[in-house]
Amino acid sequence: MKALIYDGELRLVTDYPRPEPPPGEALVRVTLAGICNTDLEVVRGYMGFHGVLGHEFVGVVEDCGVPELVGQRVVGDINAACGNCPTCRAGRPTHCPQRTTLGIDRRDGAFAEFLTLPAVNLFPVPDQLSDREAVFAEPLAAACEILEQVHLHPTDRVVVLGDGKLGLLVAQVLSLTGCDLLVVGRHPQKLVILRQRGIPTALGDEVANVQADVVVDCTGHPDGFLAARAMVRPRGTLVLKSTFHGVNQVDLTSLVVDEVQLIGSRCGPFAPALRLLARKLIDVESLIDAVYPLDQALAAFERASTKGTLKILLEVE
Amino acid sequence: MKALIYDGELRLVTDYPRPEPPPGEALVRVTLAGICNTDLEVVRGYMGFHGVLGHEFVGVVEDCGVPELVGQRVVGDINAACGNCPTCRAGRPTHCPQRTTLGIDRRDGAFAEFLTLPAVNLFPVPDQLSDREAVFAEPLAAACEILEQVHLHPTDRVVVLGDGKLGLLVAQVLSLTGCDLLVVGRHPQKLVILRQRGIPTALGDEVANVQADVVVDCTGHPDGFLAARAMVRPRGTLVLKSTFHGVNQVDLTSLVVDEVQLIGSRCGPFAPALRLLARKLIDVESLIDAVYPLDQALAAFERASTKGTLKILLEVE
Repeated sequence: MKALIYDGELRLVTDYPRPEPPPGEALVRVTLAGICNTDLEVVRGYMGFHGVLGHEFVGVVEDCGVPELVGQRVVGDINAACGNCPTCRAGRPTHCPQRTTLGIDRRDGAFAEFLTLPAVNLFPVPDQLSDREAVFAEPLAAACEILEQVHLHPTDRVVVLGDGKLGLLVAQVLSLTGCDLLVVGRHPQKLVILRQRGIPTALGDEVANVQADVVVDCTGHPDGFLAARAMVRPRGTLVLKSTFHGVNQVDLTSLVVDEVQLIGSRCGPFAPALRLLARKLIDVESLIDAVYPLDQALAAFERASTKGTLKILLEVE
Repeated sequence: MKALIYDGELRLVTDYPRPEPPPGEALVRVTLAGICNTDLEVVRGYMGFHGVLGHEFVGVVEDCGVPELVGQRVVGDINAACGNCPTCRAGRPTHCPQRTTLGIDRRDGAFAEFLTLPAVNLFPVPDQLSDREAVFAEPLAAACEILEQVHLHPTDRVVVLGDGKLGLLVAQVLSLTGCDLLVVGRHPQKLVILRQRGIPTALGDEVANVQADVVVDCTGHPDGFLAARAMVRPRGTLVLKSTFHGVNQVDLTSLVVDEVQLIGSRCGPFAPALRLLARKLIDVESLIDAVYPLDQALAAFERASTKGTLKILLEVE
């Protein structure tokens, strides 16, 4: 089958073996997939991954031990957990120490004609959602994860730092709480997407002395941390959504003195993401910059790597 | 009056001006005070403080606009807040940006014959408590602060890292929740204080592969962070109780991937600390290494600075 693989270099191949779903897993024919910044990081060496890239997808189940799923249009949780270890049994399968992760860690991904995932990872897509909407379920679930972890009050002053793809989704999700939200970014052409929906925005150099109850760092780079930290009030919360190489210099004593809470946030729940999409509460259409056929995946990757680009989709068939 | 001051050097003076309480404040005649590691840090330059040192005390109110307090034996919250700013009005006076702090930040402290504090900061000491018990109210309040911030479940696996004065208090408070607690330290002669009360302990080099729901870093030094971080399970909580100079190297991406929560924790509530002491649920007597008269405060400081020393008290009269 056709697949975009990384094995030290990024290559589009046509003879990649079609996966055989092991027991408990489903074979999914991919229809549309999204390029995420994590894919760009993987190509720079993140996680040491070799194989088929990609983890944001929508597809149709071709083969599955669960007959109801066959023929269904689905999206899927990218963490394939063992289901049996203490972490899984404690209800934290996305942290299973044995997990593999679609297109990121020891599991071939979605930039191919077919993928496999455990049947329990799959979520049927409501009919009222287009593929272009459903393909955002995975990053939107990651945005919803913040509300799983932090009790955001409608009266909270909240800052989302970063106007990339994830920042724009996070901002839209958090604004649904009614909180007093400000999104701080660097790209007027991205921030306008939020302003058109009534979400206040500012350019980074326009803000000074902001003190928020909750700050979410969606910048995706190490410098974002210091800027975000400076905006958190004493006893406030700083949600970390950025992954990158290397370590940061952190003044832990100031966290103690100000009793600030840092909380790392990664993958999230698909069901609420699909509900928000079905209710048309999240604008994802404005986030799509271009759709490429899988045959032009290398050009799509190059475009996705260009600074300022929003979502690039890959149409598989 | 007699006072132990730091003005670039640590000096015992006899002619320090007796403080005059401004409106709203009480004049307290100090009877017993405790030396804390923060006092040692202040003498190394922490907070740039010059003045009378000390913030752990018990004393008797000599003069106060609130007549019921006069003659009362009291302990006191060390953060003197403005009471009027948004932070104070939001119920977070210990984070008031205008606050002064007893013996730490722009307010003369407790290693003297007299101190002043706002009347609202003072807590009458129950009769069944000795001065030697009551003088621990401040650090015990800081231990209680952890339970103000973190919902510790009785089923949680908890590690307290550090067997200094604060670690021993924190361990005793947390063990009252019924949680599955392990205290990891470096000093068998300190850990035995906890083991005698039925609290499991281990030396640092005896533990491997511990994965706890909640880890509290009470080591007081920068190296403690890495050791504590390694013991936190994915989605677990790391409570930071250590203040020290300088910054740490922190792998923020691993916090995101493991969705770990860091939470800084400083001063705490006095009322629960006094209740726990009154119920004799906390052994503080074992934590007292020596009592010096204020006249010998320099020797007391030297003793307190010696590695492995627990609490050194200063008897003022």
